[in-house]
Amino acid sequence: MNKIKVGIVGYGTIGKRVADAVLLQDDMELVGVTAHSYNYRMISAKLKNIPMHTMNGSIPHLQTVGNFDDLLKKVDIVVDCSPKKIASENIEKHYKPHKVKAIVQGGEKPHTTEASFVAQCNYKDAINKDYVRVVSCNTTGLSRTLNVIDKKYGIERVDATLIRRGADPWDIRHGPINAVVPVLELPSHHGPDVKTILPNMNIFTTAVAISSTLMHMHNVIVDCKETPNVDEVIKLLQDETRIRIVDNESMVRSTAEIMELAKDLGRNRADMPEIVVWREGIGVSDNKLLFMQAVHQESDVVCENIDAIRAMMGFVDAEASIKKTNETLQIDIGKY
Amino acid sequence: MNKIKVGIVGYGTIGKRVADAVLLQDDMELVGVTAHSYNYRMISAKLKNIPMHTMNGSIPHLQTVGNFDDLLKKVDIVVDCSPKKIASENIEKHYKPHKVKAIVQGGEKPHTTEASFVAQCNYKDAINKDYVRVVSCNTTGLSRTLNVIDKKYGIERVDATLIRRGADPWDIRHGPINAVVPVLELPSHHGPDVKTILPNMNIFTTAVAISSTLMHMHNVIVDCKETPNVDEVIKLLQDETRIRIVDNESMVRSTAEIMELAKDLGRNRADMPEIVVWREGIGVSDNKLLFMQAVHQESDVVCENIDAIRAMMGFVDAEASIKKTNETLQIDIGKY
Amino acid sequence: MNKIKVGIVGYGTIGKRVADAVLLQDDMELVGVTAHSYNYRMISAKLKNIPMHTMNGSIPHLQTVGNFDDLLKKVDIVVDCSPKKIASENIEKHYKPHKVKAIVQGGEKPHTTEASFVAQCNYKDAINKDYVRVVSCNTTGLSRTLNVIDKKYGIERVDATLIRRGADPWDIRHGPINAVVPVLELPSHHGPDVKTILPNMNIFTTAVAISSTLMHMHNVIVDCKETPNVDEVIKLLQDETRIRIVDNESMVRSTAEIMELAKDLGRNRADMPEIVVWREGIGVSDNKLLFMQAVHQESDVVCENIDAIRAMMGFVDAEASIKKTNETLQIDIGKY
Amino acid sequence: MNKIKVGIVGYGTIGKRVADAVLLQDDMELVGVTAHSYNYRMISAKLKNIPMHTMNGSIPHLQTVGNFDDLLKKVDIVVDCSPKKIASENIEKHYKPHKVKAIVQGGEKPHTTEASFVAQCNYKDAINKDYVRVVSCNTTGLSRTLNVIDKKYGIERVDATLIRRGADPWDIRHGPINAVVPVLELPSHHGPDVKTILPNMNIFTTAVAISSTLMHMHNVIVDCKETPNVDEVIKLLQDETRIRIVDNESMVRSTAEIMELAKDLGRNRADMPEIVVWREGIGVSDNKLLFMQAVHQESDVVCENIDAIRAMMGFVDAEASIKKTNETLQIDIGKY
Repeated sequence: MNKIKVGIVGYGTIGKRVADAVLLQDDMELVGVTAHSYNYRMISAKLKNIPMHTMNGSIPHLQTVGNFDDLLKKVDIVVDCSPKKIASENIEKHYKPHKVKAIVQGGEKPHTTEASFVAQCNYKDAINKDYVRVVSCNTTGLSRTLNVIDKKYGIERVDATLIRRGADPWDIRHGPINAVVPVLELPSHHGPDVKTILPNMNIFTTAVAISSTLMHMHNVIVDCKETPNVDEVIKLLQDETRIRIVDNESMVRSTAEIMELAKDLGRNRADMPEIVVWREGIGVSDNKLLFMQAVHQESDVVCENIDAIRAMMGFVDAEASIKKTNETLQIDIGKY
Repeated sequence: MNKIKVGIVGYGTIGKRVADAVLLQDDMELVGVTAHSYNYRMISAKLKNIPMHTMNGSIPHLQTVGNFDDLLKKVDIVVDCSPKKIASENIEKHYKPHKVKAIVQGGEKPHTTEASFVAQCNYKDAINKDYVRVVSCNTTGLSRTLNVIDKKYGIERVDATLIRRGADPWDIRHGPINAVVPVLELPSHHGPDVKTILPNMNIFTTAVAISSTLMHMHNVIVDCKETPNVDEVIKLLQDETRIRIVDNESMVRSTAEIMELAKDLGRNRADMPEIVVWREGIGVSDNKLLFMQAVHQESDVVCENIDAIRAMMGFVDAEASIKKTNETLQIDIGKY
Repeated sequence: MNKIKVGIVGYGTIGKRVADAVLLQDDMELVGVTAHSYNYRMISAKLKNIPMHTMNGSIPHLQTVGNFDDLLKKVDIVVDCSPKKIASENIEKHYKPHKVKAIVQGGEKPHTTEASFVAQCNYKDAINKDYVRVVSCNTTGLSRTLNVIDKKYGIERVDATLIRRGADPWDIRHGPINAVVPVLELPSHHGPDVKTILPNMNIFTTAVAISSTLMHMHNVIVDCKETPNVDEVIKLLQDETRIRIVDNESMVRSTAEIMELAKDLGRNRADMPEIVVWREGIGVSDNKLLFMQAVHQESDVVCENIDAIRAMMGFVDAEASIKKTNETLQIDIGKY
Repeated sequence: MNKIKVGIVGYGTIGKRVADAVLLQDDMELVGVTAHSYNYRMISAKLKNIPMHTMNGSIPHLQTVGNFDDLLKKVDIVVDCSPKKIASENIEKHYKPHKVKAIVQGGEKPHTTEASFVAQCNYKDAINKDYVRVVSCNTTGLSRTLNVIDKKYGIERVDATLIRRGADPWDIRHGPINAVVPVLELPSHHGPDVKTILPNMNIFTTAVAISSTLMHMHNVIVDCKETPNVDEVIKLLQDETRIRIVDNESMVRSTAEIMELAKDLGRNRADMPEIVVWREGIGVSDNKLLFMQAVHQESDVVCENIDAIRAMMGFVDAEASIKKTNETLQIDIGKY
């Protein structure tokens, strides 16, 4: 079988992780990655022998094997991890002319691609498509858990409060240092975005940003059609892939301890790709189900990009793709 | 008219503020304050000529005029601002034997006093009582706003997410430095506590602690009996005492800028005793009203203690007491 | 005596404080303040009846009495608190043509004015000058304490590490949230800037920025010509104006507790204009004096602006000006 | 050759890392680890098939193969990673009676063991010893860099300011959230502790704790006997093992970006065992050398424990031990 030839545009938070993940797939070949400038991330790229390409002009200190156009001539599909708006512009300017398939990330508008994507919710929507959008970390997180609950109990309405990390761990420029910053739009954009994955979901979200670099937190209230049972919900979520139950009983009391658990699990970059739900944070009141989940903004979409590549290249078996991705990325290891 | 003779037990975050407030009331006399040890707060007490009393033994560096027992002999009423549980023990051990009335704070259990208290909600419940509990900063905040909404539209159910400051500004010992810490009990204790003020309120709360020292934040969802109107709600809250509307339009985008506004207003210790609601954070979806409010944990209950003193000493006119307290403490100044 | 007619350009962190301070001086009149846009600071300006002027065009929601040019026609002297570089451009473009004296702040280059200024170090240098620069918060802090030590023991060399707050308390946009960010220039600009006040000082500084909004911290090492004595140094600093000794013994263990003490002292905006030195942080090793000081970046230069106004307007008695400024701003109250 | 039988007491921050490191050494066998209670760290221990032992009584949820005494009967040497003071008590109470060698960590007093240890400075001092102390993360960091500089230029005196992380990343209980907390003892304990490794070093340290969980920072001033040269110092440090030069030019501007680089390098738990020195932070002024270094408090001593095991068991070739340890732990990979 021919390997899928993959190119990655942008070697930042998501791009470098997708690159590492592609390197682990036996049905994919990492043809190359583009970069704009030299920085410390290139030290790791060099250790991994990743063929680098310039976006424009030469890059001091960096050994490159070609430019963006050269890369596009060699690949079947591109994973574009450029900052917001640039990836969707690249579709029109570069990928369509080069007849290259492309995945863009959750910062792009939904209408710029043929489908939005969360593997365990709507893998089939991406099959054989040319342009697909892997949704944002928060939308991925909400879709994974709500989809399970909806299938079991039916969902009338969801109200969620998103407590967003203020900046990524490496980002020293953005705050707040000591404040809560409400998102003063109602609903926040997250609610509507979930509907690109789960079209019938009636969901309303509010959001605040806080002074932490670790994980987003979601406090979720679900009006169910059938009254849910706490133990049953725990088991449902435990058995679902890419969701992990943790508990206070084993001292996982915070997003900080989740990140420490991630270090202990030994995976690449100490990532936590599963959506993490606290066992003791699941409750039922009237017909409402309440739960609290944490989302590792840097990593939960990496596996989605891998599955989206397969779907777009015509691999039709969702379950097989997810299984393969999980095994290579050690997803779901060490679950209760 | 004889002035009410007030003693204050504990000169910490709340105690020192209540002391300052009592000093401003022309119907009250600050007979004395107790302290356990010498610290920087005594510098200010000395500047204000506050008569200090020891709790037990002598206190190095501190000039005192007597001890706890001496204080109890001189006062009509005590505001006990001791750490959790100690104040309610003091009722049995000290205040009842000395036939001294006492106010305790929100950390005490409701059943240890005759009434829980938020002036604008249930002033009359404290009239002529001997032992009253001023509820916590969060309960005070929720009660003030929900009471207004309930009277106008009727409330079926409230779901609120409390995003709690991790430690007070002066507190260098407690964290988290970089994490979200969910409160893993459902509901958190705040919901049931609101019922001590608004007995018919059907309210469910979840809470997380975060890495900020400034204000608690509440994201509130209210199922109303009648569909609320956003502009009407803004006006309702604006017109209510001890609630302040702010907006993004004048660059109040965060709890940090609320605290800066508080400094600008020139009040004592740069406090913000009003519950602060963002205009642009008020919305309606189906029959649900959503709003976001910030609570200054150090100061919103200070005026409540002053009104509770009056009620317990037999002053029956709630509105007059609130007005007098507000004027002396400059509450509601500079409101839109 | 005619009052000095003062205008203030820029109503931000420093501008609003200088405005408040001018309002308290019986030999000065606050003719007006300029603003660029409407924001929450205008709520306080309105409460204080400060005449506002537009910088350019009209400002929605804000009642103004004129524009920048109108203000310049009415004043003897301007305190320009504009962001870096703008104030020194204003000297050439506006103040010289209008024959208006002007004070600029520490962000401007020294050569753009006739003198740099810290009242207790070099008041006389500003007498009758037209353009003077009040140096930055950090330079002010280092100059105040080093000047005292130099006069007593003679200083060979100073090495200081500045641990800078990452952003001001109200500033929610800047980080870092969780990092130490070294200033990778040697020396940092602070060392050379001290020489604009104390020309013979041999000082070398390094700096890092951290995740706090409260005060800068200076760890200072002074090679003295004569061996200093710890108790004598404590007394020297204690007796000097605009320096405050605090101690661990009274539980002032951190910049947070200094800010809490500032709230307790009851001054405007809970400011701490004195440079704060820890008693237990003063030590001697060989002929080196070591000490740790904290600088309230928002307020220590406010009194300097007031004294600079007097000096520039021909008031020659430094001590009398400092005394008057101190009394009106309650500087040095509650010192040990 | 018989493998060295190693036991580890305490499975916290250091213990779990030393356990992982021992598992990678072909001349060592990890006989077992002790634990006090069940927590999330046991999830990872189970994945790695580490034989667990109880300290006292049984531990709910945890499968154990014996207790502390059982472990001591099976091992040649113990690495004790207990909290401060407990490890040195264990020497007297348990390790001497069982005739088991033991390594304790930097929290213990120097006199409780026969030698303090940093492999590249004084490996030989630990050869064939029974009780050795691996010094703290900060002492290790200062010793590694100062030793190189001393050998080249001779050191007259060192003054260092330590800017300490307030709490470890997983630690949600400790602050400060928003403050600088000076260590009010002069010198801080770090200076004297360096002399346990480099006995002739004349070093004085001051310290502050800040609101960050990532790395300690050291701003170091070295009075050299011979005037140092910046380029030469860069090369010296670059060529020394367990020290890593980074630079602003490749966007490593902060401790946060060092930790991100650590993630990129792909090592276990995203650790950074090398002491990290900024190229642009190295300077010379008069005969003083200035530099800034960052210390990963969780990991820099792990390799030291491995080398100490070998030295104590009679392996005399320091360089060979360091090389073996480095290769197995991927130390020094990706250096410039």
